Amino acid sequence: MYPRDPFFKNKPYLTTRSLQPDNQETPIHFLENGETPTGLTYRRNHFPFPTLSTKSYYLTITGSVKTPITIQYNQITTMPSRTVTAVVECSGNKRAHFRPKVFGEQWKDGAISQGTWKGVPLFHLLQIAGVQDSVHEVVFEGNDSGIKKGQHVPFVRSLPLKKAMEHDVIVAWEHNHKQISPKHGFPFRLIVPGWYGMASVKWLKTIRVVDHPFSGPFQTDDYVYYPHKNNNEEAVPVTVSHVNSIIQQPLDRQILQLGQHEIKGLAWTGEGVVISVEVSVDDGETWKTATLHGQPRQFQWIKWSYSIVFEKNREYSIKVRAYDSNGHLQPDTAFWNQKGYGYNAVSQIKIKVE
Amino acid sequence: MYPRDPFFKNKPYLTTRSLQPDNQETPIHFLENGETPTGLTYRRNHFPFPTLSTKSYYLTITGSVKTPITIQYNQITTMPSRTVTAVVECSGNKRAHFRPKVFGEQWKDGAISQGTWKGVPLFHLLQIAGVQDSVHEVVFEGNDSGIKKGQHVPFVRSLPLKKAMEHDVIVAWEHNHKQISPKHGFPFRLIVPGWYGMASVKWLKTIRVVDHPFSGPFQTDDYVYYPHKNNNEEAVPVTVSHVNSIIQQPLDRQILQLGQHEIKGLAWTGEGVVISVEVSVDDGETWKTATLHGQPRQFQWIKWSYSIVFEKNREYSIKVRAYDSNGHLQPDTAFWNQKGYGYNAVSQIKIKVE
Repeated sequence: MYPRDPFFKNKPYLTTRSLQPDNQETPIHFLENGETPTGLTYRRNHFPFPTLSTKSYYLTITGSVKTPITIQYNQITTMPSRTVTAVVECSGNKRAHFRPKVFGEQWKDGAISQGTWKGVPLFHLLQIAGVQDSVHEVVFEGNDSGIKKGQHVPFVRSLPLKKAMEHDVIVAWEHNHKQISPKHGFPFRLIVPGWYGMASVKWLKTIRVVDHPFSGPFQTDDYVYYPHKNNNEEAVPVTVSHVNSIIQQPLDRQILQLGQHEIKGLAWTGEGVVISVEVSVDDGETWKTATLHGQPRQFQWIKWSYSIVFEKNREYSIKVRAYDSNGHLQPDTAFWNQKGYGYNAVSQIKIKVE
Repeated sequence: MYPRDPFFKNKPYLTTRSLQPDNQETPIHFLENGETPTGLTYRRNHFPFPTLSTKSYYLTITGSVKTPITIQYNQITTMPSRTVTAVVECSGNKRAHFRPKVFGEQWKDGAISQGTWKGVPLFHLLQIAGVQDSVHEVVFEGNDSGIKKGQHVPFVRSLPLKKAMEHDVIVAWEHNHKQISPKHGFPFRLIVPGWYGMASVKWLKTIRVVDHPFSGPFQTDDYVYYPHKNNNEEAVPVTVSHVNSIIQQPLDRQILQLGQHEIKGLAWTGEGVVISVEVSVDDGETWKTATLHGQPRQFQWIKWSYSIVFEKNREYSIKVRAYDSNGHLQPDTAFWNQKGYGYNAVSQIKIKVE
């Protein structure tokens, strides 16, 4: 009567938020430490997918450089490489939890995945081209484009030069040990570990070094924290991923039987590493330290768990908060902002024991 | 640059709510009139999937009958058949919308699908067995079983004899023109069009005619409306699907451009047919009649749409309500009940035009 056949191994699916553009969440409640399978890696697009071929594909490095260069696909993949396993999280992840609610894609907890990326360090490419002294930022243009506020625009983002020169920032051509899939940035994707996902430009076409602050709709309109409802004052650009966590089990509003249960989940942060995860089963009155599974690693999520015996038939409010090595912890209330970025309030669910 | 390749046809996925048991939602925001593809048909299980084979499979009809009978798989599929295209909706569909929140699987709008089922009318089987005069109900046992409140129990449900004798109630062996898939009830599934999905027992094993009201955990504990938070008074069994609708487009909290847009979705009801769908774009102040696409058919959902020009940069609260031929309409507020069944309040979203 019980599962014998591989058919009966239930598998999770991406959760479809929209199809135009293709926005699909990772089923993060059902994943473990390690790489998110490519087919379950979240997809967040601004425009239709570009269709590209390696045959005639080249990457251009231009702007304020000594020698503008053009590199063919087959050249770049023979360059010295670096491999990084990292969380990439959409800055709109968990947007649906903001109160008051905000407009935009209503991501729950799954606009995040962990993957292994192999590529050439960006600083190596910039060294070859020769960066001039006046340089301010490096601008990355993807091959994806479309209409935004009445204008046809490509997806373009910049990084400060200092960030761009960090050794973990790579121009990747492999994802999870294979050629990057067309839906995740093939042939090249910039990977900026520790920063929210908008920085990791897909379908990378051009790298342009500039001597002025770059402004474009995805730099100075979207992906900016606007803390006030009715004005755009005190705006701050979205950069590093906040310390954060998810409760994978139990599920919110689940009904459990009396007895022993495991509360488990994942925790991550953009800078430093997660050093502790705490669990409360009394709505935040008292906190206990969860077990971390494995060694905390920079840029990676870590599995945590906490075992508990539920002895009474009643409701429990469960809260979870992660701390990182830079002294950041998840706040009780998220930092509200107009466009709903960077949600990282204490994770919470309610369950009932009966 | 734009999609040419079938690869780039974005497809929706089931939304995974839990894996043990396997509970997955249909991506209903992205479907049209007609059959929901089997791979996108929602799955709601109480227990692990049973593994069954047609080789030794038979259906037993027993209890208060003149001649208890056992029918082999190959016999039943040669019997006179009836084909029904019907919505099957979990009674917990939209549970996540209840306020105050209730415990149980947090289904959003997708615990519903439409399929075509072919099988032998149940009344035909009951006539062969010969139903005795004292009969009260007909009890259906599935091959799925597991632990519920400390007891090992199978999934069992009953129907009043009157309902069981209706010609559209069938013992199906085909779903969407193929053998029923193992995850959707293979080899036999009872289909009770117009009733919530718990009545359509999967992996049907035994039909037992009884002369007393049947009580089992899925009949008198679950699948009962308990209208009061702190007591079980005025309990009413869950039966017919309520008149209901979904807004497929725009998505909740979507940001739209000025100009013409189509608001569209689906509407359905358990008894009778949907006769009208109304749309309000001013939070319910005024209502306009939507266009129904196609002829309303019993047991089937119907696509509706409403075209509008958004002329102002502001927020809009959009509401939708369906009426059926029995005079039912979606209420402003859902009928709250402890276990969260039958949610059918007016559908609503907010959008922003900019």
